[in-house]
Amino acid sequence: MVNPSQVVGPAVPTQGAKAVWRPLGVRDVDITGGPMGRWQRINREASIPLGLEQMERAGSVPNLRLAAGEAEGEYQGYRFQDSDLYKQLEAVAWEHARRPGPGYPEFIAESAALLGRAQRADGYLNSHYQVVKPGKIYAELEYSHEMYCAGHLFQAAVAGARAGAGERLTAVARRLADHLVEVFLTGGDDGIDGHAEVETALVELYRVTGERSYLDLAAKLIDNRGKGLIKDSGMGPLYAQDHLPVREADTPVGHAVRQLYLEAGVVDVYLETGDESLLECSVRRWEDMVATKMYLTGGVGSRHDGEAFGERHELPPDRAYNESCAAIASIHWNWRLLLATGHGRYADLIERVLYNAFAASTSADGVRFFYVNPLQRRDDTVEDAYLGRRREWFACACCPPNIMRTVSSLGHYVATTADRALHVHQYVPGAIRSGGLDLAVATGYPWDGKVVLTVDRAPGGPWSLALRIPAWSAGTATLTVGGESVAAEPDERGYAVVTREWRAGDTVELGLDLTPRLTYPNRRIDALRGTAAVERGPLVYCFEQADQQADVDDLILDPRAELRVIDKEDVPGLGRTVLVEAGAYAAEPPATGLPYGSAPPTPDPGGARLTATAVPYYQWDNRGAGAMRVWLPLA
Amino acid sequence: MVNPSQVVGPAVPTQGAKAVWRPLGVRDVDITGGPMGRWQRINREASIPLGLEQMERAGSVPNLRLAAGEAEGEYQGYRFQDSDLYKQLEAVAWEHARRPGPGYPEFIAESAALLGRAQRADGYLNSHYQVVKPGKIYAELEYSHEMYCAGHLFQAAVAGARAGAGERLTAVARRLADHLVEVFLTGGDDGIDGHAEVETALVELYRVTGERSYLDLAAKLIDNRGKGLIKDSGMGPLYAQDHLPVREADTPVGHAVRQLYLEAGVVDVYLETGDESLLECSVRRWEDMVATKMYLTGGVGSRHDGEAFGERHELPPDRAYNESCAAIASIHWNWRLLLATGHGRYADLIERVLYNAFAASTSADGVRFFYVNPLQRRDDTVEDAYLGRRREWFACACCPPNIMRTVSSLGHYVATTADRALHVHQYVPGAIRSGGLDLAVATGYPWDGKVVLTVDRAPGGPWSLALRIPAWSAGTATLTVGGESVAAEPDERGYAVVTREWRAGDTVELGLDLTPRLTYPNRRIDALRGTAAVERGPLVYCFEQADQQADVDDLILDPRAELRVIDKEDVPGLGRTVLVEAGAYAAEPPATGLPYGSAPPTPDPGGARLTATAVPYYQWDNRGAGAMRVWLPLA
Repeated sequence: MVNPSQVVGPAVPTQGAKAVWRPLGVRDVDITGGPMGRWQRINREASIPLGLEQMERAGSVPNLRLAAGEAEGEYQGYRFQDSDLYKQLEAVAWEHARRPGPGYPEFIAESAALLGRAQRADGYLNSHYQVVKPGKIYAELEYSHEMYCAGHLFQAAVAGARAGAGERLTAVARRLADHLVEVFLTGGDDGIDGHAEVETALVELYRVTGERSYLDLAAKLIDNRGKGLIKDSGMGPLYAQDHLPVREADTPVGHAVRQLYLEAGVVDVYLETGDESLLECSVRRWEDMVATKMYLTGGVGSRHDGEAFGERHELPPDRAYNESCAAIASIHWNWRLLLATGHGRYADLIERVLYNAFAASTSADGVRFFYVNPLQRRDDTVEDAYLGRRREWFACACCPPNIMRTVSSLGHYVATTADRALHVHQYVPGAIRSGGLDLAVATGYPWDGKVVLTVDRAPGGPWSLALRIPAWSAGTATLTVGGESVAAEPDERGYAVVTREWRAGDTVELGLDLTPRLTYPNRRIDALRGTAAVERGPLVYCFEQADQQADVDDLILDPRAELRVIDKEDVPGLGRTVLVEAGAYAAEPPATGLPYGSAPPTPDPGGARLTATAVPYYQWDNRGAGAMRVWLPLA
Repeated sequence: MVNPSQVVGPAVPTQGAKAVWRPLGVRDVDITGGPMGRWQRINREASIPLGLEQMERAGSVPNLRLAAGEAEGEYQGYRFQDSDLYKQLEAVAWEHARRPGPGYPEFIAESAALLGRAQRADGYLNSHYQVVKPGKIYAELEYSHEMYCAGHLFQAAVAGARAGAGERLTAVARRLADHLVEVFLTGGDDGIDGHAEVETALVELYRVTGERSYLDLAAKLIDNRGKGLIKDSGMGPLYAQDHLPVREADTPVGHAVRQLYLEAGVVDVYLETGDESLLECSVRRWEDMVATKMYLTGGVGSRHDGEAFGERHELPPDRAYNESCAAIASIHWNWRLLLATGHGRYADLIERVLYNAFAASTSADGVRFFYVNPLQRRDDTVEDAYLGRRREWFACACCPPNIMRTVSSLGHYVATTADRALHVHQYVPGAIRSGGLDLAVATGYPWDGKVVLTVDRAPGGPWSLALRIPAWSAGTATLTVGGESVAAEPDERGYAVVTREWRAGDTVELGLDLTPRLTYPNRRIDALRGTAAVERGPLVYCFEQADQQADVDDLILDPRAELRVIDKEDVPGLGRTVLVEAGAYAAEPPATGLPYGSAPPTPDPGGARLTATAVPYYQWDNRGAGAMRVWLPLA
């Protein structure tokens, strides 16, 4: 069985942690095809090279040269510009761990050396405050992002250490972490960063170094949040989750990325300390989020204003903010909940986020990114030219390197081990090496529902192989072991478990029914009343103008018509995909004048009968700027 | 006939202007009852005294003392803090014109004296820039609000001059206007304020003073907008309507108040110069706004983000911004279009805005105000505690004094004269003195649909009396003259016109059918699909929790059930009102868990049959913080 201390992945609880399951690492899982394999290839070939260029161009590296006293000039960008470099370093470290790459160790070593030279003798490190505001260090934590940046450095250092490429980076990180401990733990300063992130990172740094004070500081920062210790940045206390102590809050609020990074830290502290009150409150908020504040794509954050969670059931598809970083933070949180509870609903949600809210963030060619991920785009280009299309980079570039570090570490989220058991959470073609039961996986998922798992190496004695049965597939999944049907009924955690003494060459075949389905919103979601969406397997679909016979905004879906699947080896701009055709009408454009009148909507939509064609949501905006809808009005 | 130079109101074109109709003034119309009468009483008794207190407390007056060198201390508030005082002065001037009040002339005189002492020798006047940023005068027009503040001073001075209470104020205003002319017209500086407002104000100051350069500067500012001369304030060019030249823009965009104040200026410049291209583009944008970007209440600005117009048909009821100031700016624009074209659709819209978007801004007791006017409030108080209820005042207090100046001048918008004709646009009990045909008006409108107009004074020879037939009443209105039925068919401008030789004592009776009606949204408005609203006469209704037998969010409207009217002399918290009862169901609360599933909505809503009770929208939020909806889902 894989030894936790050797796992090369972004969330690895200690031996004594409360984890029900143990993660594998990016070296223990090969992803050889399917969308995830494609994303990893494009990430390595296109996204990471672009990111490395931007470290120089967008200012992150030049700023550190200023802090090191090695250059003259103006500080560039936002006060959290350092964090872009840290996430880029983390991406490169996981990528290097996955498969050594040219220039990767050099980039890590050179960056670590520069960071070391920029770091103050007392361990403090933040190029913005050192260069621009030396008199304000730790004086404006409500918006300074100093601990936020530190957290991303810690995560980069953890990745470097686990990948065997970051001794020097770890030394820089430890000096800064020790400085934080001196000021905010032993020094008695009750400061808290307005942007949570350092909590989960401190726990990870504790896991790598064994330094208990890092865990203690993380716990203190979580315990003290919500007590009014954070000054108002002008955005109010909800924005920074400072409105209520973390154990008392029932629902995610405020800036979505902050809330979800905080939750990752909350569960991490639970994992390492066993403080059940932390797990309990985090699960409570998860349940509320999933039931009332999450989009079908798994995206969260329904407000542009404050990049924030809205009220319960406030889920407009057009104005969905759904920051790419919030999707990533949701994966972090769900992964930790999965390790803490062993419940497949968290792996279900990781799958929903991965294939939809997260995957949509990046163009098919890997060099353009969404910051905001709506579920509808109108053909009204006067507004939002800035946000309406993917862009190569952003002034606030938190998302692109965050995406890259996630894609490089996807293997981490595929499977876990437990006592004589292997749980498979995500179905990707390739190999899973658990150190006990090792598997080869052959599948065309999610295009195709057949997953064939062949035992490569069998441990002695009985082992359980547990396969996640996605909630959308409950009651329709099939399972054979050695060609013989067995029950595919999931256990209370959502997994079909086969326990036996395995031999190399044994095969298990899981059949997931990928018949496309119509999905309807709960009536409380006002913004979606009278509509339906198409889903197929884990994929949410959308209707893009490029594929339609009429204006997207005139399409009316006929829910009685059969949905037809069109398998496509290659659609220009998209590559491999599966289209879904639906029966629809093209309604007449409405009359001009006041859009409110006495005529009730007619049951007969009128207009021409036609076929509306849907593509996977994550592939949208690769073929021009036309309208797009996930939810179509119903006839 | 009233002489334009004697009209005491906020928009009075010159004799030679292109106006089809001539306005009356606040002294020419008495409003003795009905909601408008009540608003004027409360405005005088409660709102204006509160506003006068706040001039000292919120910093507007103390800031000017700093600028005058008469006090020491810190500048308080926003950079446009002066404008609050200017709007308050305007409110007091109209109020004083309407009925002289204690302390009003003193407040105007003392303020004018202080402004005179604060004003620089060269005429420049802006306390923020004089006190805080003297080195940046006119250097950051994209967000400085210097001309915006100047515009509000000009409007206050115009009000003071027309009310006969502002000679000193006019002198201050002229010195500042002359300074603007020197710098931005004859001086050749092509600067433009990021916040339009000064354009309409300069035209008004021209009307009062005859100084042509003020009109020329207004025209120049409008001609040069949209050519990239405004630096980006960080909000992009749409925010300040600098994306396209004003004659080329087809749709209102960006910050709603800016767009609508700009439109008032555009029509004002047309009125005085006859430049048809200005009227044409403004009407084009009006038509687009009304058809695609306006709420049922007449409110505009669907985005919190940027306080902005959204895309076409982006009209979420819950996240409607609908700033109170945008409703006021819409009245300004519509009034000028009405004068310019004589078309009743603009008076129709003034009525819609006045009784709904505008009236909702103020509490029944006149001492609390909405900045944001949504059409739905959920019972989810974690979010938006700040914006969810009316407040006594705001850090950015643009709205309250803007509301007060509008209420004080309501009489201006009731009727107009033309060649031997009197047009009545709004039906209020009281008197209309046109200087030709003078009328007494008796009506319980909008609670009651009967309007009795009695001739008080008749001019010699034939005169036309034209009564607006609201669009919602076309085909059902009745009209009698001296007890005899005549056709109530509106002409092409929307007015029923009776021409005859009138005698004192003649009566005309207009009957407007106030049967409540269900209103359905155009299908393009995604956020309202599958809902209906209740309207009665000019009033939009809403369902407040205080009146319901079930949770507002569980109400499902039965469109087949009759709507019943309940006349109420006094409902605690609201005063005089008319309730409307509708048939409804109380749906079962939805299941917990993921709010997306395979079950289509059922035609049968299930749940208990009950009565849902609606109150006029403008009266909401006077009885606690519960949920509210204008649009109810349909069974």
